[in-house]
Amino acid sequence: MRKIIKNGTIVTAADTYQADLLIEDEKIAMIGQGFDETSAEIVDASGRYIFPGAIDPHTHLEMPFGGTVSKDDFETGTIAAAYGGTTTVIDFCLTDKGKPLQNSIDQWHAKSQDKSVIDYSFHLMISEMNERVLDQLPSVIEDEGITSFKVFMAYKNVFQSDDGTLFKTLEQAKNLGALVMVHAENGDVIDHLVKKALDAGQTDPIYHALTRPPEVEGEATNRAAELTGLADSQLYVVHVTCEQAVSAIAAARKKGYNVIGETCPQYLVLDQSYLEKPDFEGAKYVWSPPLREKHHQEVLWNALKTGDLQTLGSDQCSFDFKGQKDLGKDDFTKIPNGGPIIEDRVSILFSEGVKKGRISLNEFVDITSTKIAKTFGLFPQKGTISVGADADIVIFDPDVERTISVETSHMAADYNPFEGMQVTGQTVSVLSRGEFVIKDQQFVGKIGSGRYVKRSKFGSPTSSQEKLYQK
Amino acid sequence: MRKIIKNGTIVTAADTYQADLLIEDEKIAMIGQGFDETSAEIVDASGRYIFPGAIDPHTHLEMPFGGTVSKDDFETGTIAAAYGGTTTVIDFCLTDKGKPLQNSIDQWHAKSQDKSVIDYSFHLMISEMNERVLDQLPSVIEDEGITSFKVFMAYKNVFQSDDGTLFKTLEQAKNLGALVMVHAENGDVIDHLVKKALDAGQTDPIYHALTRPPEVEGEATNRAAELTGLADSQLYVVHVTCEQAVSAIAAARKKGYNVIGETCPQYLVLDQSYLEKPDFEGAKYVWSPPLREKHHQEVLWNALKTGDLQTLGSDQCSFDFKGQKDLGKDDFTKIPNGGPIIEDRVSILFSEGVKKGRISLNEFVDITSTKIAKTFGLFPQKGTISVGADADIVIFDPDVERTISVETSHMAADYNPFEGMQVTGQTVSVLSRGEFVIKDQQFVGKIGSGRYVKRSKFGSPTSSQEKLYQK
Amino acid sequence: MRKIIKNGTIVTAADTYQADLLIEDEKIAMIGQGFDETSAEIVDASGRYIFPGAIDPHTHLEMPFGGTVSKDDFETGTIAAAYGGTTTVIDFCLTDKGKPLQNSIDQWHAKSQDKSVIDYSFHLMISEMNERVLDQLPSVIEDEGITSFKVFMAYKNVFQSDDGTLFKTLEQAKNLGALVMVHAENGDVIDHLVKKALDAGQTDPIYHALTRPPEVEGEATNRAAELTGLADSQLYVVHVTCEQAVSAIAAARKKGYNVIGETCPQYLVLDQSYLEKPDFEGAKYVWSPPLREKHHQEVLWNALKTGDLQTLGSDQCSFDFKGQKDLGKDDFTKIPNGGPIIEDRVSILFSEGVKKGRISLNEFVDITSTKIAKTFGLFPQKGTISVGADADIVIFDPDVERTISVETSHMAADYNPFEGMQVTGQTVSVLSRGEFVIKDQQFVGKIGSGRYVKRSKFGSPTSSQEKLYQK
Amino acid sequence: MRKIIKNGTIVTAADTYQADLLIEDEKIAMIGQGFDETSAEIVDASGRYIFPGAIDPHTHLEMPFGGTVSKDDFETGTIAAAYGGTTTVIDFCLTDKGKPLQNSIDQWHAKSQDKSVIDYSFHLMISEMNERVLDQLPSVIEDEGITSFKVFMAYKNVFQSDDGTLFKTLEQAKNLGALVMVHAENGDVIDHLVKKALDAGQTDPIYHALTRPPEVEGEATNRAAELTGLADSQLYVVHVTCEQAVSAIAAARKKGYNVIGETCPQYLVLDQSYLEKPDFEGAKYVWSPPLREKHHQEVLWNALKTGDLQTLGSDQCSFDFKGQKDLGKDDFTKIPNGGPIIEDRVSILFSEGVKKGRISLNEFVDITSTKIAKTFGLFPQKGTISVGADADIVIFDPDVERTISVETSHMAADYNPFEGMQVTGQTVSVLSRGEFVIKDQQFVGKIGSGRYVKRSKFGSPTSSQEKLYQK
Repeated sequence: MRKIIKNGTIVTAADTYQADLLIEDEKIAMIGQGFDETSAEIVDASGRYIFPGAIDPHTHLEMPFGGTVSKDDFETGTIAAAYGGTTTVIDFCLTDKGKPLQNSIDQWHAKSQDKSVIDYSFHLMISEMNERVLDQLPSVIEDEGITSFKVFMAYKNVFQSDDGTLFKTLEQAKNLGALVMVHAENGDVIDHLVKKALDAGQTDPIYHALTRPPEVEGEATNRAAELTGLADSQLYVVHVTCEQAVSAIAAARKKGYNVIGETCPQYLVLDQSYLEKPDFEGAKYVWSPPLREKHHQEVLWNALKTGDLQTLGSDQCSFDFKGQKDLGKDDFTKIPNGGPIIEDRVSILFSEGVKKGRISLNEFVDITSTKIAKTFGLFPQKGTISVGADADIVIFDPDVERTISVETSHMAADYNPFEGMQVTGQTVSVLSRGEFVIKDQQFVGKIGSGRYVKRSKFGSPTSSQEKLYQK
Repeated sequence: MRKIIKNGTIVTAADTYQADLLIEDEKIAMIGQGFDETSAEIVDASGRYIFPGAIDPHTHLEMPFGGTVSKDDFETGTIAAAYGGTTTVIDFCLTDKGKPLQNSIDQWHAKSQDKSVIDYSFHLMISEMNERVLDQLPSVIEDEGITSFKVFMAYKNVFQSDDGTLFKTLEQAKNLGALVMVHAENGDVIDHLVKKALDAGQTDPIYHALTRPPEVEGEATNRAAELTGLADSQLYVVHVTCEQAVSAIAAARKKGYNVIGETCPQYLVLDQSYLEKPDFEGAKYVWSPPLREKHHQEVLWNALKTGDLQTLGSDQCSFDFKGQKDLGKDDFTKIPNGGPIIEDRVSILFSEGVKKGRISLNEFVDITSTKIAKTFGLFPQKGTISVGADADIVIFDPDVERTISVETSHMAADYNPFEGMQVTGQTVSVLSRGEFVIKDQQFVGKIGSGRYVKRSKFGSPTSSQEKLYQK
Repeated sequence: MRKIIKNGTIVTAADTYQADLLIEDEKIAMIGQGFDETSAEIVDASGRYIFPGAIDPHTHLEMPFGGTVSKDDFETGTIAAAYGGTTTVIDFCLTDKGKPLQNSIDQWHAKSQDKSVIDYSFHLMISEMNERVLDQLPSVIEDEGITSFKVFMAYKNVFQSDDGTLFKTLEQAKNLGALVMVHAENGDVIDHLVKKALDAGQTDPIYHALTRPPEVEGEATNRAAELTGLADSQLYVVHVTCEQAVSAIAAARKKGYNVIGETCPQYLVLDQSYLEKPDFEGAKYVWSPPLREKHHQEVLWNALKTGDLQTLGSDQCSFDFKGQKDLGKDDFTKIPNGGPIIEDRVSILFSEGVKKGRISLNEFVDITSTKIAKTFGLFPQKGTISVGADADIVIFDPDVERTISVETSHMAADYNPFEGMQVTGQTVSVLSRGEFVIKDQQFVGKIGSGRYVKRSKFGSPTSSQEKLYQK
Repeated sequence: MRKIIKNGTIVTAADTYQADLLIEDEKIAMIGQGFDETSAEIVDASGRYIFPGAIDPHTHLEMPFGGTVSKDDFETGTIAAAYGGTTTVIDFCLTDKGKPLQNSIDQWHAKSQDKSVIDYSFHLMISEMNERVLDQLPSVIEDEGITSFKVFMAYKNVFQSDDGTLFKTLEQAKNLGALVMVHAENGDVIDHLVKKALDAGQTDPIYHALTRPPEVEGEATNRAAELTGLADSQLYVVHVTCEQAVSAIAAARKKGYNVIGETCPQYLVLDQSYLEKPDFEGAKYVWSPPLREKHHQEVLWNALKTGDLQTLGSDQCSFDFKGQKDLGKDDFTKIPNGGPIIEDRVSILFSEGVKKGRISLNEFVDITSTKIAKTFGLFPQKGTISVGADADIVIFDPDVERTISVETSHMAADYNPFEGMQVTGQTVSVLSRGEFVIKDQQFVGKIGSGRYVKRSKFGSPTSSQEKLYQK
């Protein structure tokens, strides 16, 4: 059925203007005014912004971690995402050393296909790089449309790769048109600092932060960036948290290296002191890399503005405080890392970024949607409001003031790390390929209606991906 | 009359997609497909890009300089601009110390209003900042819509201001919502180096470059940027040419200062060796700042990519080789500075930038049009293709290969500095507010049809201007 | 008469060792043990350090400033210097525009020759650089042995030179073998900020600091350093106070520029909050550049360690609180700039530097004496303990703990800015060319016994001056 | 027997002066003039410099490497060292994983004690860091006086340690008063690049350089420096070769980290093109890290001047061209790394550094001797000319011009990498603890007369070691 969204202010990564939208056959068909309203559903968006649906490039739904499984699965997770204005997620598909990659991918399809209420795609985790893995990559890219591979420099003896694997992945990514993502922390040093802390009886959540200081993130970020330059390849640094890492990325970009940085809302508005909350509440704020001292926040905001950081992910990986986070009651290393963020990511950037004058409205759309679509090969199908694009649309009230709370959240975890935070702005309605998923703040979607999206290669002209100039 | 541009690929700073455009009443009325073609002029754009008209933020038309006057006036200059795909120019209005600013503005209106074939606006040159000047600024901003003021750190005893004037202008700009533009070269040092060269009998054009080394530009750029940070104001550095200046801008932006940088096509593709051409031909390549050694070009391209430089101006200021440039036959200081660039600015960035993979198509539009419109308060009336925007449209053939030559140029000067350069891409047709100015590579516009455009204040929400985040 | 200093620990910029010193004919004659003690005065230095006499490269004795004259003249000033372990001062000779330089030099000879109790030399202030001045420089250098010239970038309309004068001075210094010294603050901006503060009724001492923020020092330091690199000359930046200026110097040195930096004890241990002392006491702490926020101190200490700063001067320029500083009671611009520092410079570096582990004993000697002698052409006559050097010797007790106070100071001013500060270490005895000036903490010298010292050229092999490598 | 060295110019890290030296009981007894010449051997040093004996902090004598053994042992190696003006070497004692450290140390004593003609000491290589190793360190430090430990970040599967081992070693070094030395190259990446080259049939010596690009050294240097800062420990980076590594060291020092850098003469005067010499001659120039492109040389020289690099080692590890280097005829990875440098290290720095004006005479002494003695706990016994120091003395003719050649070398290898190089300056005579080893360019020493020297801890006050200020 045709839909006409009327009277709203359309905002893209470049533009802000008043016009109506005509939606037909899952797509944006026309932008203008005075459309024939016969047999069309009319949606009034007076006084509201119309954004392209946000894309979350970094989620871990129903992911096994440390003997438990992240709480939100593709059903609760994508419903919450939609409530927050996100219409596409790219989830990390973990792989097992020595097993066929396709096995893991199939597993990920299995857990997502009947549950997701919005469109989704996968990144692939790379734990080894050898002939055997290499032989499988072309089909992963061509058949599955998975064009981004993640390498871990931390989590020693679990996910951690050595620099040779990272470098070989960078080389292959260049050859195959893929993008390497990296978790940049020096796992060897962290491993030692953690053992030392435990030996000293330092088991509280704050020691999670103190055993992963910003220096180990800065060092690893510089290392990954330098290897990228050497391989003349492309790199996406996930969840950047600190000045040291931002400096490494900025220096690399100044040298013409293709290095892109992502941060997350928790690093923009929360800080290390949260890990010291009494009664083990600090555990709610355990991420890797950890929250940092407050002065890093300003650096992250400025980097979003100058482009040294380019995207915002949620790193969604939620766990209950009771029953999951408390696995680490006597040992911070047993606290599952991560938290419920998927729903509030967009709101926080709007409220703290746009409303407080740190970024423009267009930059907000770019950071939460367009740049992500371009970076990960979803563009122009996703990530913008233009004729021919998927009608993934968010109708947003910019003026509502509200308080974030687990009471009103739709994520599965039993707490919200932003509890009590005042924000301005509220997602009102959300369409996925032309159908309402959220309507007037109520979920009206269909479980399993989300589709898997194959992504194009990095730097392919159709996606206008963000390849930096190289000499 | 309604016009429909069909079958083209619309490109904005964010998007690239196929759709038709409906133009009514000077504006873009609708974007989509299947428009009612009754009584509409149909323009076929198959196989072509549809760009928002480019904006030239830096022109000197019919400007007195060194005892002569720049060759292109608002008629020949804007016709040539249109041929090259530019639909708006912002020209520098010179002022006279001690005289009312309005006198100068009136003079500039007088020389433009009956001549310009495209829309235009003015920047105002500031040569002194005192109570008297300060009192006049509100009306310049409110009544004339002139929201950018230029200060010269060079041209000692001619245009040069001292640092106090620069700083006071930065302070006032902050208070009044204006943007300070700066010509950043250390004029005192240049003055001395020039005298020394002349004393030593070094009169050839190459000494123009050798007496204005990149260090004096880098130093002055750093100085202006630091004063901007101190004043918490905003700065636009015109015609950045070298690594030293780019580094100063990047460092300032990293500190969160509002500093924006412009470069020009001549600095991207020509180099200092051109000034050594025999038979005084070097004089054709005399700009201030001068062309630099080749290695600086890569730094400029990378800075356009990372955002440390954000816009491209022409610094159009053309002089005949015979009769004007040769005033400096025996003394390089008598060579009028500048050259005919307005027509080829866009083509060169497309050919050397997009076609050679240094920047994306969307970045090309941003750099030549959108970012300029946002920076200078023309957005969203100018600088994009969105419903409600002025129908300033360029239809562009991306595949034509051609050779730049004075023979085929429409600028008034008797030479073209890019003579013989192969470029790919050609402006085919150009519309200004819905009317053809160029149609199938022929000028079809009307002399004097261009309108003066008042600009909004820096950072005003309607223009989504590019204000950097400040703590 | 022969003197033998026995049982002390000799410390130079390189060495620390136990030996006896034999002094004959004003010089160090022999170092070792078991000297013939016949007809020799035996001085026991058991448990004490024997340092080369410190050199103060930056004093303003009996200097006219702001309608008054600095309190300490060459008599009280050099007596106090000697008490503190300083055996040579280099004072700034002010010049008058348009008058012969020799006039000023003669004036300075007149006020020093009958008063100084230790050796002394002069720097020359340059207020203009033209043919007339240039013609006088060779005789200043050759006949007077004045091989360092100071240029002011601040004090608009008083001492301030423009960048052309600075650059020409740098060029001439290179040609003539002299060193350019610079007071690096942007005087134009300060002038404006000061007027603005006064207009707003902000007359208290703290506004002295707030109207000269570190950005204006950092900018000017970068400017002077860049001009030095461009001129391939040599620069000495006096009284560096802040991170911004240190960064500019470090960046210049990394590029191979000959840039040397000096700081002063007040910047190492006092901070901006002192200017907020009640009852106008803040006036006691008015220097230009001003005291900075505390975090700059660590940067200065580290720079002394890494060599980005190389020397310590006092910037001695004392005024009484009552009768002089209070000229600025109602207007901070009327407060004479400067303070009594000459006596405590060495003690503070020893106590806060050596005793707190920030610098080594050898570095302490280098920073207070040897490097200064080498930089300013006094070496090896002054600045070290080696056979043949002048017997300018300090016998120092490293373990005494004492409190700095005006009560025990020998400077003429009615307050001491370090009042109440605990320091470890005390100058016990001081010899100037083999004669005691201070003996067991009592002045025993002769008024007028100090000699004027002609200095060698910058970079002359005999002085092993600190010229940086240049490509 | 007493010796008197007369009429020379004594040069230390601080001083340059004319005086005579009296030597008694292996020590410098007195400095001055007019000594009692009864029963003293008089050595005339007219027109010559008298330097403290140089110290080579980086030798590999009789070291097993890649299936062969380095050609010079403690006899030929120390004789050649003495010919070149070196009076102390610190050799690297390799250890075997899992075996007692003392075994290796005993082995090293065994091969040195009956052979060395000058004094010597050992560094210890650390290949693992665990409880077992940790327990042995106190005795290594206290009993053996070995206070510096080397960790390799390269040579994968041979010497390479992981970052955890490096970090733990840094922590222990801090606790125990030792200095960590690091070979900084990313071994994982090199390992991969090497395999790729060999797979592609790229077996020539030049591929040794191309598979270890400067980026892998810069990255590893930054990594080691950051870990040092995090551990608040101290680091000595051996054989720094490139701008990337110098920048990492400079950045660390600016942050107040205790990071010291060493370079070698080969990197100062030879470049990567030497590896392309025909007939496999490139193999003569195979070091790790490799020789770099020429532009890096200027960066190294400037860093020696500014102090970002502080010492010069030889990395002596000689192999015959025929019979050893040619093991890699068909595979560059089989070429033994290293070359004969120990004899020419000092001459090259004097000729290219002092004579060409890049460093001063005092800096030359500091870089080749004093700073090394202070850094490695040999001071003031070694590294200077002061009363009480070991009479390790070099008498040097600064004006002789000569050509370096294997013909006149005393090293055992069959080629000299500096063959044909013109240098100015020549070691004439050398004393070790007061006894001639070289006299008038002839070896007159006694095999086995060199003594093992125990070294003091890092930062111990007696050694005035170069500990950077830390907040």
